[in-house]
Amino acid sequence: MFPTTHVTLRSLSVASKCVVLLPRGGRLSHPGVGVYSHRTLATKRIKAVKLNEEERKSKLKPLLQEAKWSMVDGRDAIKKTFTFTDFNQAWGWMNQVALAGEKIDHHPEWFNVYNRVEVTWSTHDCSGLSLKDIKMATFCDKTHKTS
Amino acid sequence: MFPTTHVTLRSLSVASKCVVLLPRGGRLSHPGVGVYSHRTLATKRIKAVKLNEEERKSKLKPLLQEAKWSMVDGRDAIKKTFTFTDFNQAWGWMNQVALAGEKIDHHPEWFNVYNRVEVTWSTHDCSGLSLKDIKMATFCDKTHKTS
Amino acid sequence: MFPTTHVTLRSLSVASKCVVLLPRGGRLSHPGVGVYSHRTLATKRIKAVKLNEEERKSKLKPLLQEAKWSMVDGRDAIKKTFTFTDFNQAWGWMNQVALAGEKIDHHPEWFNVYNRVEVTWSTHDCSGLSLKDIKMATFCDKTHKTS
Amino acid sequence: MFPTTHVTLRSLSVASKCVVLLPRGGRLSHPGVGVYSHRTLATKRIKAVKLNEEERKSKLKPLLQEAKWSMVDGRDAIKKTFTFTDFNQAWGWMNQVALAGEKIDHHPEWFNVYNRVEVTWSTHDCSGLSLKDIKMATFCDKTHKTS
Repeated sequence: MFPTTHVTLRSLSVASKCVVLLPRGGRLSHPGVGVYSHRTLATKRIKAVKLNEEERKSKLKPLLQEAKWSMVDGRDAIKKTFTFTDFNQAWGWMNQVALAGEKIDHHPEWFNVYNRVEVTWSTHDCSGLSLKDIKMATFCDKTHKTS
Repeated sequence: MFPTTHVTLRSLSVASKCVVLLPRGGRLSHPGVGVYSHRTLATKRIKAVKLNEEERKSKLKPLLQEAKWSMVDGRDAIKKTFTFTDFNQAWGWMNQVALAGEKIDHHPEWFNVYNRVEVTWSTHDCSGLSLKDIKMATFCDKTHKTS
Repeated sequence: MFPTTHVTLRSLSVASKCVVLLPRGGRLSHPGVGVYSHRTLATKRIKAVKLNEEERKSKLKPLLQEAKWSMVDGRDAIKKTFTFTDFNQAWGWMNQVALAGEKIDHHPEWFNVYNRVEVTWSTHDCSGLSLKDIKMATFCDKTHKTS
Repeated sequence: MFPTTHVTLRSLSVASKCVVLLPRGGRLSHPGVGVYSHRTLATKRIKAVKLNEEERKSKLKPLLQEAKWSMVDGRDAIKKTFTFTDFNQAWGWMNQVALAGEKIDHHPEWFNVYNRVEVTWSTHDCSGLSLKDIKMATFCDKTHKTS
C-alpha cells in the first residue's frame, strides 16, 4: 500500500480510476488512484512514513535487541557506534554506506573520528523512523560484519 | 517498451485534473493527466535504450564536438581523459562520479593512474549509448570544471 | 629551520658534522647536527606539539579571523561548518580531506548530515592545536573553495 | 639513488653515537650512526628501488605463485583482477587501497567496471617492481579477503 503522505490527491474531484503506468512495468498502487511504478522506483520508494506498530515490532525491535542499535533520547531515531581497526577500514565502510544511502536518497547523520563512526538514522520527511532507516541500519550491520 | 513521456494513461476516462503529489515537491507532468514526480525519480528514469538519431544530434554531438569526448573504436561508446593536480583531486572527483552513477544504476568503465582518469561510458543494457551515458558524461564535465 | 622539538640530540657529545641523507634527496636540517629529510618526510613531520605564541598569532589567528574557524568551548581545538550543494559534493570533498589526513596521520573529528560537514581539528598527541591542525584546516578551506 | 639502509653517512668522520630523536618516539636505526625514526616514517620509507634477487624470491614469488598475481607482459609490473559482489563493495575496497597508497605516496594503475577491479603495481621511480609494490599488493589481498 502506498501511503497518503507520498501520493496525495490535490483535488477530490479526480476520477477514482486514474491509472498511470510507469517505466519497466513495476507498479505502485494507491487505493482509489492507482499509480504504478517499476521495480527501481519501488526501491527508491521505500516508505518515508513513520513505522507503524507492526513494523516496529517486526523490524525495529530486532535492531534494538539483537543488533545493539539504541533509541536516541527525545527523538524517534536510532543510533549505533561502529569501530574498526583503523581509519582506513572505517573510511572504506563509510564509503559503502554513502553509496547505499545515495542510491535510495537517504543519508546518515554520522560522526567519525579515526576508527570510530557513530551513526544515527532517522527520516526527515516523516520526522521519525521509516523503513528507509531500517534498511540502512541493516546495511550498516551487514557490511560492518564483513569488513 | 519505455514510454517517451514515462507516464501513460491506461484509461482515458480519467479526470483531466488528477494530480498526484510525490515526495519533496518535484513534479512529473503528463498532458491531460497531470501526474507529478520529483526530480530524483525523473533521474532514475533515464532511458537505457540506444540514442535515436535526434538524440545523437542534439545531445551526443555537443559532447563530441565541444566537450572533447570521442567515440571508442569499434563500439557505440564514448571516452575522455580527465586530468587533475594530483591523486587527491582525482580521487575526490572519482567519488563524486561513483555516487552519481550508483544513484542511477549506471557505472563507468574507468582507468586511473595518479592524477589521470580515462572514463568510458556505454550502456550494457542496450549495447550502446543511451541517455544515461549522456547524463553521466555531462556530470563528469560539470564536476571536473569545478573541482 | 627544523624545530628542536622534532630533532633532539640525545647526546651532546655527537659530532657536529653528522649528516644523514634521507630518500629522494630532500633535506631536513638541524643546526649543529645536520639531519636531512626529503619533502615527504617534512610533510609527515609537521609538529604534533602545541602551537606556541608566535604560531598562534601568525597561523591560528588568520583562520579564526578571516577563515571563520572558531575555537571549541573548553578545548584547544577549532571547528568550522562547511556546506555544499548536496551530499554528492560534500562526499567528494570529505574524501579529499580523508586522503590528505591519512597522508600525514592526522584525522578529523567530523559530523556530516547530507550537504553539511562540521569539522573539528585538534591533536590528540599534544592535547591541543598543533601545526597539523593548521595544515588540515587550511586544506579544508582551499579544497572547499574550489569544489 | 635510494640508499639500501635509507640512511647513508655522507661523512665517515661522524661520531658513532649520534642519536636523533624523531616525533612520537619511533626509531630508525643505522649501524654506526644511530638515527632513529618513528614507525610512520619507516612506512613511508619503503624502498622505491628495484627488488633484488633475494627479494624477488622471498617476496615476489609468493604473490605470483600463491596469491595469483601475474607479471605484466613486457614490464616489470604485476597485475591481478579482483571481483566483488557489486559496485558498492568494489568501491569501498578501492577507497581503502586509495588511502593506503596515498599514505606511502604510491598509487595503483587500475581499471574498474562495476564489480571488477584490475590492479597493476609498478614503481615509476625505479621503472620496475619495488618493495612498495609488494606492500600494496599484499594490502590488496588482505583487504579483499576480509571485504
